[in-house]
Amino acid sequence: MNTFGRRLTLTTFGESHGKAIGCILDGVPAGLTIDEAFIQAELDRRKPGKSKLETARKEDDKVEILSGVFEGVSTGTPISMIIFNTNQKSRDYDNVKDLFRPGHADFTYFHKYGLRDYRGGGRSSARETAARVAGGAIAKLMLKEIGIEIQSGLCEVDGIRAETIDFNHAKRSKLYALDPSKERAQEEAILAAKEAHNSVGGVVLTTATGVPVGLGEPLYYKLDAILADAMMGINAAKAVEIGDGVASTHLKGSQNNDAITPEGFKSNHAGGTLGGISNGDTLIVKTHFKPTPSIFQEQETVTTTNQPITCNLKGRHDPCVAIRGAVVTEAMMALVLADMTLLNMGRKMEHLTSLYN
Amino acid sequence: MNTFGRRLTLTTFGESHGKAIGCILDGVPAGLTIDEAFIQAELDRRKPGKSKLETARKEDDKVEILSGVFEGVSTGTPISMIIFNTNQKSRDYDNVKDLFRPGHADFTYFHKYGLRDYRGGGRSSARETAARVAGGAIAKLMLKEIGIEIQSGLCEVDGIRAETIDFNHAKRSKLYALDPSKERAQEEAILAAKEAHNSVGGVVLTTATGVPVGLGEPLYYKLDAILADAMMGINAAKAVEIGDGVASTHLKGSQNNDAITPEGFKSNHAGGTLGGISNGDTLIVKTHFKPTPSIFQEQETVTTTNQPITCNLKGRHDPCVAIRGAVVTEAMMALVLADMTLLNMGRKMEHLTSLYN
Amino acid sequence: MNTFGRRLTLTTFGESHGKAIGCILDGVPAGLTIDEAFIQAELDRRKPGKSKLETARKEDDKVEILSGVFEGVSTGTPISMIIFNTNQKSRDYDNVKDLFRPGHADFTYFHKYGLRDYRGGGRSSARETAARVAGGAIAKLMLKEIGIEIQSGLCEVDGIRAETIDFNHAKRSKLYALDPSKERAQEEAILAAKEAHNSVGGVVLTTATGVPVGLGEPLYYKLDAILADAMMGINAAKAVEIGDGVASTHLKGSQNNDAITPEGFKSNHAGGTLGGISNGDTLIVKTHFKPTPSIFQEQETVTTTNQPITCNLKGRHDPCVAIRGAVVTEAMMALVLADMTLLNMGRKMEHLTSLYN
Amino acid sequence: MNTFGRRLTLTTFGESHGKAIGCILDGVPAGLTIDEAFIQAELDRRKPGKSKLETARKEDDKVEILSGVFEGVSTGTPISMIIFNTNQKSRDYDNVKDLFRPGHADFTYFHKYGLRDYRGGGRSSARETAARVAGGAIAKLMLKEIGIEIQSGLCEVDGIRAETIDFNHAKRSKLYALDPSKERAQEEAILAAKEAHNSVGGVVLTTATGVPVGLGEPLYYKLDAILADAMMGINAAKAVEIGDGVASTHLKGSQNNDAITPEGFKSNHAGGTLGGISNGDTLIVKTHFKPTPSIFQEQETVTTTNQPITCNLKGRHDPCVAIRGAVVTEAMMALVLADMTLLNMGRKMEHLTSLYN
Repeated sequence: MNTFGRRLTLTTFGESHGKAIGCILDGVPAGLTIDEAFIQAELDRRKPGKSKLETARKEDDKVEILSGVFEGVSTGTPISMIIFNTNQKSRDYDNVKDLFRPGHADFTYFHKYGLRDYRGGGRSSARETAARVAGGAIAKLMLKEIGIEIQSGLCEVDGIRAETIDFNHAKRSKLYALDPSKERAQEEAILAAKEAHNSVGGVVLTTATGVPVGLGEPLYYKLDAILADAMMGINAAKAVEIGDGVASTHLKGSQNNDAITPEGFKSNHAGGTLGGISNGDTLIVKTHFKPTPSIFQEQETVTTTNQPITCNLKGRHDPCVAIRGAVVTEAMMALVLADMTLLNMGRKMEHLTSLYN
Repeated sequence: MNTFGRRLTLTTFGESHGKAIGCILDGVPAGLTIDEAFIQAELDRRKPGKSKLETARKEDDKVEILSGVFEGVSTGTPISMIIFNTNQKSRDYDNVKDLFRPGHADFTYFHKYGLRDYRGGGRSSARETAARVAGGAIAKLMLKEIGIEIQSGLCEVDGIRAETIDFNHAKRSKLYALDPSKERAQEEAILAAKEAHNSVGGVVLTTATGVPVGLGEPLYYKLDAILADAMMGINAAKAVEIGDGVASTHLKGSQNNDAITPEGFKSNHAGGTLGGISNGDTLIVKTHFKPTPSIFQEQETVTTTNQPITCNLKGRHDPCVAIRGAVVTEAMMALVLADMTLLNMGRKMEHLTSLYN
Repeated sequence: MNTFGRRLTLTTFGESHGKAIGCILDGVPAGLTIDEAFIQAELDRRKPGKSKLETARKEDDKVEILSGVFEGVSTGTPISMIIFNTNQKSRDYDNVKDLFRPGHADFTYFHKYGLRDYRGGGRSSARETAARVAGGAIAKLMLKEIGIEIQSGLCEVDGIRAETIDFNHAKRSKLYALDPSKERAQEEAILAAKEAHNSVGGVVLTTATGVPVGLGEPLYYKLDAILADAMMGINAAKAVEIGDGVASTHLKGSQNNDAITPEGFKSNHAGGTLGGISNGDTLIVKTHFKPTPSIFQEQETVTTTNQPITCNLKGRHDPCVAIRGAVVTEAMMALVLADMTLLNMGRKMEHLTSLYN
Repeated sequence: MNTFGRRLTLTTFGESHGKAIGCILDGVPAGLTIDEAFIQAELDRRKPGKSKLETARKEDDKVEILSGVFEGVSTGTPISMIIFNTNQKSRDYDNVKDLFRPGHADFTYFHKYGLRDYRGGGRSSARETAARVAGGAIAKLMLKEIGIEIQSGLCEVDGIRAETIDFNHAKRSKLYALDPSKERAQEEAILAAKEAHNSVGGVVLTTATGVPVGLGEPLYYKLDAILADAMMGINAAKAVEIGDGVASTHLKGSQNNDAITPEGFKSNHAGGTLGGISNGDTLIVKTHFKPTPSIFQEQETVTTTNQPITCNLKGRHDPCVAIRGAVVTEAMMALVLADMTLLNMGRKMEHLTSLYN
């Protein structure tokens, strides 16, 4: 239940304010050069406290590989990675110990399990996504070997929508903004919300290029369905679209179908999948993040004994979780695609016989 | 790869124009009264040819239980169900044998597997969803025993949106329309598209009431993530929303958080989940279906040897797949919830000890 | 829970006296020629009633493929097979309806599930193994393409042990006897037990030749461990040995280690695995079957309300289940090896890159 | 592939001479008091260097819990445990870097993955079993709450067989000997082999009392089959017996069937399972361990480039792996049973409805 994937599996552990978080990535083929600096760089893209747009919690997020790598290369055995927590302020959470923060998982964890680690949301904290990014980084190294590249950025913040898509700009942008002309307005919306002790939502666009035809295992491990699972499972995600997504609903079949030519598809309304299998075109996924539930306004809630109480949060929080969420969507897409490339190896008898004969 | 679920698993088989389709539902607890008439009634809601809004293919979709039920009651062993195909017209597909229909899985199946059963889309045909509905019907019988009820209907057709939600109306409506005042316009849009040899998209709203708090297994088998997987995996689905979904992105945190009172949540923007676990409120999912790719206009495509060719489809098709898709969303939600209720049984030591001591 | 394997999965359904038994085999690569006559021949080797050494129940065990095969070739979609029950005599079981037959699963099924299909043991009947043989036959077709051959035979009956191993003889022998010089004594032991309304045990030797080095996924999907699972899960199996097995316990390390030369291993005490991975030598497994629990002597037991009662069985039973069990061990070994060959495809980055670049 | 179990899963990582070994145990119900001293005590029973009968490698095997426990109690989230390696002497392995030690996994790992961590066997080292013992200790804490107790001991060493079974004696014995009257001879056999630079095999008896009726999920997750998987997967195991096992093959049905009385079974040839489901009687499993492959005699082998070479091992090794293997069998049995108790919770509708209504 804490494992993602089938052939390449990521199992994560850890709580926001425990000793450490980490993961075991199992199924990486032997012989992959493990670039630790790249893994750390990926974690740095996600780590908190890089700008005013993010939580003030400072975590170095230094990752350490404990197993599965020998002389710089993967051995085919499970790769375990650990990130120690260093900047916990558990006391910040004393005042939420006995109540449920609105919009958070406090209510459901407490009622499901009968108890909860209330410090920083415990297991439900977005901090756990660092382990996903570590695992996703190795998945990216795998994918790079076969020419797949994943990119992401914010295409919408607080309703302000990108009109042009520039992934190179997003890489340099504090808020991973895809449209340079909208970046300033988006940033201001975030800061305004922050000042008002409030928060805003955002939409992340994530794409993969170089995807071979054939990834995805119908009918119950389809590429698009598992991407939906992967993205919806990220903290604060509330909607996932593939290709034109919601907009395709308003088209006629004659407009939405992508015509095929000997050179490839003439359009990409489908977003790179047909029948749950990659069609070789760019994979396009949009993930919608709700506004951060942690706001610093008075909120109505109940205690763990169901008494009404007013909730006034302290602590350090992102005013727009979509920003750092973008890095997480890349990790999840990388994990999905790496898993699918391995599963797809057994699709034809000719591959089996060529490998063994 | 053709199995859905973990503790309650549905494995399906069968092609559109093969001998039969069917499924094995494994994990149903012993002692459930299996109401065969109800299962058949569910299949009848999905079966084709009920009105002009649907494909003209007539299939009785008579389901037969082969195992797992003894004297009318589930025994705890796998329940197998079979539906024979009776109204195949394979010849309709002779002309598509060597080309790829735009918007269909023809292209990806052929390139993935190196060959394909081209008759009616083979395995990728929406016909397979009959097996899901059969399995989902038994899941519904399970859920009924614990007070969970699932409903659905169309909240949008070709951009025409429901403003009121009336599930009782949807039950009687030919197009499962949720808003009686929009039904006629929606129907006309479908018929107009059909007459123009075209097709339209639609959006299905699916809800569950009576859901106990605690369903969903974080972090990688979350309720919302698995619902997203389940819905996105249905043929023609392109987007999934939980609760306010896309709209929540435009709210501030203070607007989107659902305040909690001793009597329950004051609003339900979340759509019944927090942290991937059900919160006891109504579960709300929206699934967006693209317009049917099968249209009767000339389309540009290529042959299996990548030569340009014009595609002119024959055959019988739904002008709006969202209609029958609604029934499938219910089945998938039922399968997810029944699976989750079983998984959730082991969440507390006190349940384990009370069961065994 | 009714599914075996990970990448190639066999899911079975059906009860001894229900309408049908069958299976879904999922994960067969596309492009395998499906030789239906071979599948039927395998079922014929297992089917009951071929000689006085077996139960008198006559079942044709005609298998029908319902899906996953198009124009004689696998398509990569699930292959479903069905075998209708034709020779049930449910009345034979009226007298055991309310009691538990010693040595059978009646007691445990009833107490686990609270009810049971008592006719012929229901799901726990060895009849279900026909579905395994059907699935195993297709696995054998896969393995044949890469040069793996599986054979079996009885190396012991009622304590009478084979001293020579002749698989060709076993193929022609009514009791699949491996040692022609012991066959008569073994046959007489079975017939003597039958006449005395009793039963005998036996040991099956199963081997695979042509196994490539590298099959088996350490540490929790090892080849030897999964073979142990596969064999112990066959009805009436009580012990499984790999290679020298029990005998290796009595050797010194210097005797038991297989020396390695450039031409291969000098001995095969290991039985073809090292560290849970195939080493290229012949795979050797022994499965020990207890005497058939169905005997026609008076036995002490209790009713379903826990009252003492004397049990006098009627019906038709094998006096030595190991005979037909041999065919099932082959099927299980084939399923394990075919699964392992698929899993093993992703072990090295160089295979991944060569497949996709 | 490095995960064991379905509902309660143990995922392990780590190599003999890497930084650390460890595990993630997922699926422990919330509310279990985690007795860290007990976990450490279990590890101490397995740790090396306690007597002359064991390897001289000294490892404290101090276990640290990183997650999943809050205020001394399990929270329902994954429990991660880590054990740092402190006494590696990697230089001991420089001389085996380029050759394959007979009887070891060197040959198969190298050929499967194309490279290997040669230090101490890397991942294939028995050192990994410390992680199993840590996970098994928590499984034992779960089982204790429902009255299940697991015990083990050596019933045979180098062919010297126990005639009486005394688990209390085994607990105090350096070699976990079950028969006090055979202990001395068994010990001397081990020491004699050690002095001769050789090794001996042994057989471990593992039992569970207090097992409720009903554990085991037919047909492909049977209790006995999964125990066989669990035990055969332990390093150096070559055979597994349930109940009378091999001996049952020599009995007649009338002798082997366990008669049933209102007070229970009159005998326990079956070893506590019928049809793969626990019958409430003592669970009895025997695991046969081959002699340690690491011996200090000259052995014939080949290099990684397939040249003949003489192998002379250095390093520190157990002359009889069955001793410490006994502790591992307990851990594996605990993991199997804890998993099965959770899976079994959903077997009847009445349990489902009572939990939710």
